[in-house]
Amino acid sequence: MLTTNPHEDDTLHEECGIFGISGATDAARLVALGLHALQHRGQEAAGITSFDGVEFHTHRAMGHVAGNFDREDIMVPLRGSVACGHVRYSTTGETALRNVQPLYADLASGGFAIAHNGNISNAMRLRRDLVRRGSIFQSTSDTETIIHLVATSNYRTTVDKFIDALKRVEGAYSLIVMTPEGMIACRDPLGIRPLVMGKIDGPDGGSIIFASETVALDVVGATFVRSIDPGELVMVKGTEITSHRPFPQVAARPCIFEYVYFSRPDSISEDRSVYTVRKAIGAQLAIESPVDADLVIPVPDSGTPAALGYAQESGIPFELGIIRSHYVGRTFIQPSDKVRHLGVKLKHNANRALIAGKKIVLIDDSIVRGTTSLKIVEMMREAGAAEVHMRIASPPTRHSCFYGVDTPERAKLLAATKNLEQMADYIKADSLAFISIHGLYKALGEPQRNAIRPSHCDACFTGDYPTSLTDQDDVSSVDQFALLAERVI
Amino acid sequence: MLTTNPHEDDTLHEECGIFGISGATDAARLVALGLHALQHRGQEAAGITSFDGVEFHTHRAMGHVAGNFDREDIMVPLRGSVACGHVRYSTTGETALRNVQPLYADLASGGFAIAHNGNISNAMRLRRDLVRRGSIFQSTSDTETIIHLVATSNYRTTVDKFIDALKRVEGAYSLIVMTPEGMIACRDPLGIRPLVMGKIDGPDGGSIIFASETVALDVVGATFVRSIDPGELVMVKGTEITSHRPFPQVAARPCIFEYVYFSRPDSISEDRSVYTVRKAIGAQLAIESPVDADLVIPVPDSGTPAALGYAQESGIPFELGIIRSHYVGRTFIQPSDKVRHLGVKLKHNANRALIAGKKIVLIDDSIVRGTTSLKIVEMMREAGAAEVHMRIASPPTRHSCFYGVDTPERAKLLAATKNLEQMADYIKADSLAFISIHGLYKALGEPQRNAIRPSHCDACFTGDYPTSLTDQDDVSSVDQFALLAERVI
Amino acid sequence: MLTTNPHEDDTLHEECGIFGISGATDAARLVALGLHALQHRGQEAAGITSFDGVEFHTHRAMGHVAGNFDREDIMVPLRGSVACGHVRYSTTGETALRNVQPLYADLASGGFAIAHNGNISNAMRLRRDLVRRGSIFQSTSDTETIIHLVATSNYRTTVDKFIDALKRVEGAYSLIVMTPEGMIACRDPLGIRPLVMGKIDGPDGGSIIFASETVALDVVGATFVRSIDPGELVMVKGTEITSHRPFPQVAARPCIFEYVYFSRPDSISEDRSVYTVRKAIGAQLAIESPVDADLVIPVPDSGTPAALGYAQESGIPFELGIIRSHYVGRTFIQPSDKVRHLGVKLKHNANRALIAGKKIVLIDDSIVRGTTSLKIVEMMREAGAAEVHMRIASPPTRHSCFYGVDTPERAKLLAATKNLEQMADYIKADSLAFISIHGLYKALGEPQRNAIRPSHCDACFTGDYPTSLTDQDDVSSVDQFALLAERVI
Amino acid sequence: MLTTNPHEDDTLHEECGIFGISGATDAARLVALGLHALQHRGQEAAGITSFDGVEFHTHRAMGHVAGNFDREDIMVPLRGSVACGHVRYSTTGETALRNVQPLYADLASGGFAIAHNGNISNAMRLRRDLVRRGSIFQSTSDTETIIHLVATSNYRTTVDKFIDALKRVEGAYSLIVMTPEGMIACRDPLGIRPLVMGKIDGPDGGSIIFASETVALDVVGATFVRSIDPGELVMVKGTEITSHRPFPQVAARPCIFEYVYFSRPDSISEDRSVYTVRKAIGAQLAIESPVDADLVIPVPDSGTPAALGYAQESGIPFELGIIRSHYVGRTFIQPSDKVRHLGVKLKHNANRALIAGKKIVLIDDSIVRGTTSLKIVEMMREAGAAEVHMRIASPPTRHSCFYGVDTPERAKLLAATKNLEQMADYIKADSLAFISIHGLYKALGEPQRNAIRPSHCDACFTGDYPTSLTDQDDVSSVDQFALLAERVI
Repeated sequence: MLTTNPHEDDTLHEECGIFGISGATDAARLVALGLHALQHRGQEAAGITSFDGVEFHTHRAMGHVAGNFDREDIMVPLRGSVACGHVRYSTTGETALRNVQPLYADLASGGFAIAHNGNISNAMRLRRDLVRRGSIFQSTSDTETIIHLVATSNYRTTVDKFIDALKRVEGAYSLIVMTPEGMIACRDPLGIRPLVMGKIDGPDGGSIIFASETVALDVVGATFVRSIDPGELVMVKGTEITSHRPFPQVAARPCIFEYVYFSRPDSISEDRSVYTVRKAIGAQLAIESPVDADLVIPVPDSGTPAALGYAQESGIPFELGIIRSHYVGRTFIQPSDKVRHLGVKLKHNANRALIAGKKIVLIDDSIVRGTTSLKIVEMMREAGAAEVHMRIASPPTRHSCFYGVDTPERAKLLAATKNLEQMADYIKADSLAFISIHGLYKALGEPQRNAIRPSHCDACFTGDYPTSLTDQDDVSSVDQFALLAERVI
Repeated sequence: MLTTNPHEDDTLHEECGIFGISGATDAARLVALGLHALQHRGQEAAGITSFDGVEFHTHRAMGHVAGNFDREDIMVPLRGSVACGHVRYSTTGETALRNVQPLYADLASGGFAIAHNGNISNAMRLRRDLVRRGSIFQSTSDTETIIHLVATSNYRTTVDKFIDALKRVEGAYSLIVMTPEGMIACRDPLGIRPLVMGKIDGPDGGSIIFASETVALDVVGATFVRSIDPGELVMVKGTEITSHRPFPQVAARPCIFEYVYFSRPDSISEDRSVYTVRKAIGAQLAIESPVDADLVIPVPDSGTPAALGYAQESGIPFELGIIRSHYVGRTFIQPSDKVRHLGVKLKHNANRALIAGKKIVLIDDSIVRGTTSLKIVEMMREAGAAEVHMRIASPPTRHSCFYGVDTPERAKLLAATKNLEQMADYIKADSLAFISIHGLYKALGEPQRNAIRPSHCDACFTGDYPTSLTDQDDVSSVDQFALLAERVI
Repeated sequence: MLTTNPHEDDTLHEECGIFGISGATDAARLVALGLHALQHRGQEAAGITSFDGVEFHTHRAMGHVAGNFDREDIMVPLRGSVACGHVRYSTTGETALRNVQPLYADLASGGFAIAHNGNISNAMRLRRDLVRRGSIFQSTSDTETIIHLVATSNYRTTVDKFIDALKRVEGAYSLIVMTPEGMIACRDPLGIRPLVMGKIDGPDGGSIIFASETVALDVVGATFVRSIDPGELVMVKGTEITSHRPFPQVAARPCIFEYVYFSRPDSISEDRSVYTVRKAIGAQLAIESPVDADLVIPVPDSGTPAALGYAQESGIPFELGIIRSHYVGRTFIQPSDKVRHLGVKLKHNANRALIAGKKIVLIDDSIVRGTTSLKIVEMMREAGAAEVHMRIASPPTRHSCFYGVDTPERAKLLAATKNLEQMADYIKADSLAFISIHGLYKALGEPQRNAIRPSHCDACFTGDYPTSLTDQDDVSSVDQFALLAERVI
Repeated sequence: MLTTNPHEDDTLHEECGIFGISGATDAARLVALGLHALQHRGQEAAGITSFDGVEFHTHRAMGHVAGNFDREDIMVPLRGSVACGHVRYSTTGETALRNVQPLYADLASGGFAIAHNGNISNAMRLRRDLVRRGSIFQSTSDTETIIHLVATSNYRTTVDKFIDALKRVEGAYSLIVMTPEGMIACRDPLGIRPLVMGKIDGPDGGSIIFASETVALDVVGATFVRSIDPGELVMVKGTEITSHRPFPQVAARPCIFEYVYFSRPDSISEDRSVYTVRKAIGAQLAIESPVDADLVIPVPDSGTPAALGYAQESGIPFELGIIRSHYVGRTFIQPSDKVRHLGVKLKHNANRALIAGKKIVLIDDSIVRGTTSLKIVEMMREAGAAEVHMRIASPPTRHSCFYGVDTPERAKLLAATKNLEQMADYIKADSLAFISIHGLYKALGEPQRNAIRPSHCDACFTGDYPTSLTDQDDVSSVDQFALLAERVI
């Protein structure tokens, strides 16, 4: 098979996007629009749960939001003025429908739906304890652990049960929860994954919205109110909104990779324009690692803002030397060995007339395995480039993420096993440079990375994990998980 | 809409058939064949779970066994030498996939799969207690109650937990359970629903089979060993078979309607040939309610054996006066009012040349709502029958079943609201007679029904229910159940 | 693979049923009902064309009528008060949608739709001539030849062009044609394939119906008017009906196998009840080939009427010794060699309790390859039958049919290569007898077969073909056809 | 319904892309890759026909190339070393499968497959004549006319018949034809639609490729040989390639809109880099219509190269002020009126942080109805733009195309009914300017448009149609066509 998405095989994947709205006619339709705007955060599956005042309605499907949640037969039954949804990147294929969120359970206190962005880093240990106690899991998702903790909590109200549950989990979580009483949004104490609040004004108090990124507010015509604070829990009951801070306060550590790649450039993240940060990263890269070249060429589309920044800072013309196809299929069957190099051309093609004979600087957001970079460099050389210099808008990615981002095992991260020179050799570039970790923080407006109290989670670059990693420490847990997992086909 | 299955709308439905096999290469393929032979016991959905020594594999689907479990893509992953399956009649439409059995759960002791024929008559009360305790239900099936009782039992071994669970349920259950240790078959203390054991001899100890009816043994070339006794629990671990009787012994009360309609005529039920019993019922009916007629005509296909018995006893020729179509769709759209009478003709058509001018005796197995009988009588008259006499091979059905048979509410049972004369008027027959309750027991070889200790459950005829009916007594339970049920679409 | 339809692999297949109606609101819905009643004549594909006074609308589908033509999305667009349809047995699998009828073409004179039961025996030669002239065929169907002959005819009116076309074809054809002017039904000069006319009375002149069998009239509540005569062409324009006889008159030769197997027993064929003829065949068989036995057992369902006739004539009791499953899938995957004999049990199962120790006479309609008979006989012996005698309700089938019936090549017809004794050995019966050819005509009410002018086409028994067989004589035509056939996948 | 593709509703659509290859193992797989690279030329349907030396194999499907022609079950049967394919933009919805190309026919000389980019402008008149003669059309496609002209030609060889047919058609056609003898590529005498030739070197003479654009050569690793000349016919039989010029020579008039919008920027069209021409158009536009602004912002993605040219010429910074979603569904259901403005945000979103308070120049390729421009301008204003100036990289589109491009009727073309000021008002821009027709030719390297002998077809801008338009002149033809069209559902 010949993958048409080489980039998707060779990049870090945000694993989820979430969106919830309370107080809107046909709430589920607005959730569908919001999830469509968050599709880049999870392309494999999507789900929506609505509540009509009496019953909860859920539809979950493999595939994109469009193609599922734009169908009348699916949308009509998702009745109600409160709804939330989830998009998901899933590594486990078609069979994982039971893992698609929102997850739902009938608790003694009534229905309980949950959509989660992040990853619970002690989920396996909690699961083992719960199963021993008699809990039966429906999925292999870490998120289900939260539901069972709520179901078995000794507190009285649903909210107290929920807070009780959260105090027992570690890791990263931005959550949207629906109960018959209302909607709850919350973010883990470190605020690792993003979550913003917006509103649509209207006659009956309007609508309150929670979303992973501000672009999802734009698409439904909502205005951005503010980010949910790390450790904050916001409850919406009808038009009443209350904020709670049940956790001991700690210094926040939001994920810095949201700026590098995950968030859409038109999003506002922690009060910064992602596009502007990316341009600043490019400019800083031009200062740190200049090169004598004829053209600055972005690896589309993720490298484009940094390339513009690099071009503007360096004065080298910005040109579209690589054209990206809008039409992407999963895989085409490879006709024969002589076209094995086709992979990257299905998605990217050299703008040959522009490149021939030129010295070029390629700008990309990151290097994961290095396979895409190699193919892109080779494509530039085939198209006649005189020199190919690669500049990367993030520091070397050397560590796995355990907070809801799909990273290859460390051994497959190019930067974990090779030094700069070896990496340049591997991707066959004339030169290679990454932005420095301090440069990255400079692009965010800080003088440099604060080694004692860094303002962001940058564990993928530094290995400095802000939480304990219980399941990782618990050697046998992964295998045990595999044993628990019935394969529903 | 114009139903092509008038019979299915106007008959009692057995709700399930189950089949399990231990010790067979490709066990799931044999389960598929066995379920196909039991398809008449549940036509809406089917499922198979296999165990390959390490993992459990499950596939569940709406629709018939054929069309699902004859596809390689579905069967290949159902690996293993132990497997069980289930066919189901479901009233809740396409969306009920989560209710399709076998149900499966990961317990602390390992995987646990269960296939159930019958109905737990205190399931709602048990469910409420379990949910209060923190159990989360995946389905709205009464069967899931058993799994949660096992999961939360304080006993140590899976078998002890299972027995502990069964001691807390009331109602009817024939069960096949799979755990990593082996397969368990059991039948409730009254033996309300059937369950038989068979075997296929082979080099490594051969295979042990459990099935709802002996026809499912025939189809896989197995020999009939014996019925599972009421209250018996049979465990198969490899080639070791052990029998347990964990319940206090009570007089058995197997369902008498299995003889009247549910079982296939080629099955052996409690050591009697179902075909032979049906012929005996017909003969007894000819003795009890003779009629001066030219032809004995069965309502195909369920009335055929009784009609043969009636004809042989009475000396009146047996003829195929109604032809049944082999091709049955769910519904056709009604073209206009003038063809509203079409319903029954899509499935049944009068053999006009035979009937015209004749006095006929129609033999059917039972009358539920009476709508089919009315249409059949009218069809006979339109075809020119001089007289139409209806004889029914069971007593009047006056009471609902709470043991796994789908019966209309009492108000819709013709015999619950009308006397014999009114019923004859309603179906427009020249005469109508049912076999007597004593006559029915005579056909089974008993002198008459033993009013003190009847040998069978005949509650649908007599209202004499052999168990308590907790959920029925618990007025609000039905509505509460409805509230719990999330509508997954 | 293990076929669940052994009968279908080992029987002759009628290749088509046709149904047309003029003058009915929602004509297509009545066509769907009519085709459902004719489903036994063609189970692989179905199609309907309607005309709403301006446009023709067509839907064609693989599969049964039910499942396709009971869906609102398919039926709503089939507007109009005139419609015709077709069911088809097809040997070429899913890909043959373009061969599914009605065929339709835009001619210079307007739309032209045609549904055909039969086979044109000079279709290949005509096709070659037409293609040389510039005609482009859409299908590999012989029926399309008729359309091109109409399109290229030099006559002026559509009817004259149609008659001109029919005068150039040889073979068997019952046709229903729709043009903007009206509906035409016609039957070849020999009347090989059946076609009947019925009516539904109504305010605006009612509806006129044409159908392959009278059962299709019954299902829509129509009354039988008469058969279309061999060589007759009936035109319906609104309420005006005219009859034409454009061909030189010849003695009719309707297919005798319609009585033996093709037609439903509740149909009236050429003024005879098919059921009554089948019983008469069974009685004649009892006279010709008596046997000392305990039970007469039909091979269900096609052997049942003849078995009743045999039983009544011989005085031996008729019993259901073989139970047929109503649930038939295409194929199940064979678990292992030891269950290779399962084939026949999926569809048929021995009523073991009845048969054990008995001498039985099995009655079947015909023997084609003999594989089914062998399996049935073996099944009876396994069930303990003391003696198994086979009686066949037709003479030995020794010749292929070229008039629209799918027969195996002669070498695979058991009776073409073996004498009676060898056949009895092959199927392992204690004795075997077929009804004589004269006996068959006796059952039809004739003294014997008239060797000079037989009243029916009986070529499959006698090899006496009533038409020339141009394509058969034209040695190379078959291969040439294969070359012409693009494989549209 | 709320369209997510406002651009697609408000742009000109190229109606086809074609690709053929001769002399390649698994030719169809290379065709699939080539069609994928041409997907932008036709997104509604695709088809491939292969020839294996004996049989032709065809698969046609609604939808994209990916999702159909990357499936093994579809590709495996498309055997052979010669294959061609087609992508199509279709206005007629799902039901038009019969119109999807390649079209295929069995002619007397053997199989004949054809893929066509363009439009025959006398197709209706030819069709009427052919139908009168007895030809039966399978589709409503103008392309089928060519096949029937070939089938009925009196010339002897297929090639002579084909040339005879082409001499009778008028309009635009780039064609790839397959016969058992070989592959033929040809282009109409004016060369209105593009067609290029490429090759892959290999041991047995390699492969010859024909494609609508050079990007399709890139994707299969082929090298660009040359464009097919206007009026040229190239035949490939095995490794033998011959060129024919059967038409009187006339001055070529290739479509100028290929540079403006249709072709991918990385294609080479008539020896010019499309990207370079687009940048030159932008630069010329900056010279002709300068504006005092802070940012140059492309309407993505089609306006991007012209915007880069405009920015480089003007010195105003190029910025990504509009972000385009990669995930495009057909339509989402509109939740309520208050979000009616959502349409454009699903595909495009303002990069709010960048735009607020800025004077911006928007660059787009063309204005068709103006609805998209209006929405984009409004979106910029909502995002806080101080001034919005629109610059268009083509002259006003005032006339319909009859050569294979889907244009709205003239009354709906904004520039056909409004002057420049009215248009600026309509789209609410502070200023609006189009490149001049002479400026457009300048960007192509010519001093100005040659009014006597323009080098390109620019009829959509000038109304100067290079061919006669028989069907347009023939008033009733459109309606008559509608009457001929059976609606196959």
